[in-house]
Amino acid sequence: MRIIVAGGDGFCGWPTALYLSKKGHDVTIVDNFSRRRWDEELKSNSLTPIVSLESRIHCWNECTNKQIAIHKGDLTEYGFLCDVLNETKPEAFVHFAEQRSAPYSMIDRDHAVFTQYNNVIGTLNLIYAIKDIVPDCHIIKLGTMGEYGTPNIDIEEGYIKIRHKGRDDVLPYPKQPGSIYHLSKVHDSHNLMFACRAWNMRVTDLNQGIVYGLHTEETRMAPDLINRLDYDAVFGTALNRFLIQASIGHDLTVYGAGGQTRGFLNVSDTVRCIEIAAENPADRGEFRVFNQFTEEFSILDLARKVQRVARNEGIEVGITHIDNPRVEKEKHYYRATHTKLIDLGLSPHFLTYDVLRDILHTVVEYQGRIIQQNLLPKVKW
Amino acid sequence: MRIIVAGGDGFCGWPTALYLSKKGHDVTIVDNFSRRRWDEELKSNSLTPIVSLESRIHCWNECTNKQIAIHKGDLTEYGFLCDVLNETKPEAFVHFAEQRSAPYSMIDRDHAVFTQYNNVIGTLNLIYAIKDIVPDCHIIKLGTMGEYGTPNIDIEEGYIKIRHKGRDDVLPYPKQPGSIYHLSKVHDSHNLMFACRAWNMRVTDLNQGIVYGLHTEETRMAPDLINRLDYDAVFGTALNRFLIQASIGHDLTVYGAGGQTRGFLNVSDTVRCIEIAAENPADRGEFRVFNQFTEEFSILDLARKVQRVARNEGIEVGITHIDNPRVEKEKHYYRATHTKLIDLGLSPHFLTYDVLRDILHTVVEYQGRIIQQNLLPKVKW
Repeated sequence: MRIIVAGGDGFCGWPTALYLSKKGHDVTIVDNFSRRRWDEELKSNSLTPIVSLESRIHCWNECTNKQIAIHKGDLTEYGFLCDVLNETKPEAFVHFAEQRSAPYSMIDRDHAVFTQYNNVIGTLNLIYAIKDIVPDCHIIKLGTMGEYGTPNIDIEEGYIKIRHKGRDDVLPYPKQPGSIYHLSKVHDSHNLMFACRAWNMRVTDLNQGIVYGLHTEETRMAPDLINRLDYDAVFGTALNRFLIQASIGHDLTVYGAGGQTRGFLNVSDTVRCIEIAAENPADRGEFRVFNQFTEEFSILDLARKVQRVARNEGIEVGITHIDNPRVEKEKHYYRATHTKLIDLGLSPHFLTYDVLRDILHTVVEYQGRIIQQNLLPKVKW
Repeated sequence: MRIIVAGGDGFCGWPTALYLSKKGHDVTIVDNFSRRRWDEELKSNSLTPIVSLESRIHCWNECTNKQIAIHKGDLTEYGFLCDVLNETKPEAFVHFAEQRSAPYSMIDRDHAVFTQYNNVIGTLNLIYAIKDIVPDCHIIKLGTMGEYGTPNIDIEEGYIKIRHKGRDDVLPYPKQPGSIYHLSKVHDSHNLMFACRAWNMRVTDLNQGIVYGLHTEETRMAPDLINRLDYDAVFGTALNRFLIQASIGHDLTVYGAGGQTRGFLNVSDTVRCIEIAAENPADRGEFRVFNQFTEEFSILDLARKVQRVARNEGIEVGITHIDNPRVEKEKHYYRATHTKLIDLGLSPHFLTYDVLRDILHTVVEYQGRIIQQNLLPKVKW
């Protein structure tokens, strides 16, 4: 299958591109390298050293004899996007190419406007370009479980049946996103849902949980294929920060009470979920929503898991509760349906002791690259 | 009260500014005159001739001895917006300053991107500017009943209580907007709801029905105070088009079956609703939603009403069903709650025979200005 992976130089996009390439798909990466520029802006880094995309692709070719094409550019530039589609005629377009950090979107007005402009207009351009150039192409769009917020009822996969005043309907699940970034994803979902209805497009919206892990089978094949490991307070996830903090004997810093509960999945499942979506495309006119995660944990659960793993490695760290820089419920009901990908064949990798120890070992290996002042939150809302 | 009316040169904004001014408020109009430019772009016009904003304001001052200040500029320019807020320190900000036509947003990709950029980024700027400069200021935002679409259950005012798998919550009412423009309003609503939660802002979102009518008490005071009457297939509403068609003996052109049912209100009620919202501000942290309409009609209902009024004026016109240029249900359930504004004191003006005859008389008066080729739809989706 001819597949474009937009954002293919990033944390999820890179292992996805490799995985799909290994599976025999004809993969094209589209990326504007903004993730690398944000590191420069924030004076931050990936804990693991990342070589240029050209070198990564060259290494992949050396290891596997497979080709991955690159188009360097931005989805907000419509002419560029049309050129890529005309040249590659994709059957599936995997869209990771968005600004994906809640704290980054909350730095100030400029970053808020940038995030919504970049994400919403980029996706609008994608809708129009696909409609006009390759209308049968399946858009596989990365959303987030954060679109739903933390309602006091079970979260369903995109839609909910509502009985109200004696009548019934199945309606889009109400959204309560918690940052300007999360809002941008909600806007995208509404725009895409409309596109399916108005123009008979085929879209799968993957409301992904928080992705952990680092290596996949493919990224392990050579040092130059290694994946990013983001750990700063802007782009890093709580689990990565805890592992980094543990590695240097720093207390694990939980935001507030730590009862914030979210869905999680292993990056090895991310790449498989994309494959499942691609191999089972949405119908024409269908806006299909999958909740893409495999387990639920609270932040405090994660801190305790990391503390235990560290202890067994001979590192004693405490858990400290710091002021929550975010506006969010710190104790709440959370239960989200996530059966559709399982039904299509996903066999989850779980967050086991071994998985955590494996990441911790990598962290210790690259300890010298940690920039400590980036660990604690500076962006508040 | 110091009130800014953004979009104060437009169809709703102008009579609102006059009404609030007459009621003794200190009114400032912010406008970038884009509505006038869109007429030039579309080679269209208001049936009623509209003089420059300066002349309108001058006339108002002559008639009433009241002052209305003008700031010419665009909400997407943040520096301009901050200057206006710093200078006027408003207690309420009435936000009509958006691209408000569904067909205009659907002309092509450029117009789609323009509409979402203009509306969403303009409102994002407003959120940040109010938060930073006048955090106690009450944002009165014009939304649209079109945000809800046509669900098969009753539409509530912004929120709905849902019982699901044995648990309850009150959640944002699910949205199913039917155009790129309507989507932009849904995005605004989500952004504003978040701003109330994150930054303790006070916002009233007025999900307005389709506004009809032309004159208010204030716009009748002098010819130069007259309000716009939009009738083209892009910015005109069905009712205005039917009245124009009747005036020239053209069949009334109903899109599809004509069972499309919507909420409607008189422009005299629009201005009163704004006053009610301003005098009863939302609490800090409250995202308050009112459904701002007074009656429900189908498109076919409206055509029949106009046909009847025209007949009594000696004009015989037929009703023709033309291909629907829009993607929408042509027969559907529609019932929407709209009690909150009534509870706060709104006394509705209804769509009576006399109201229709009054508009028809104005239409006949300005018949020479009708541009006939603009009556039928060219924009399809």
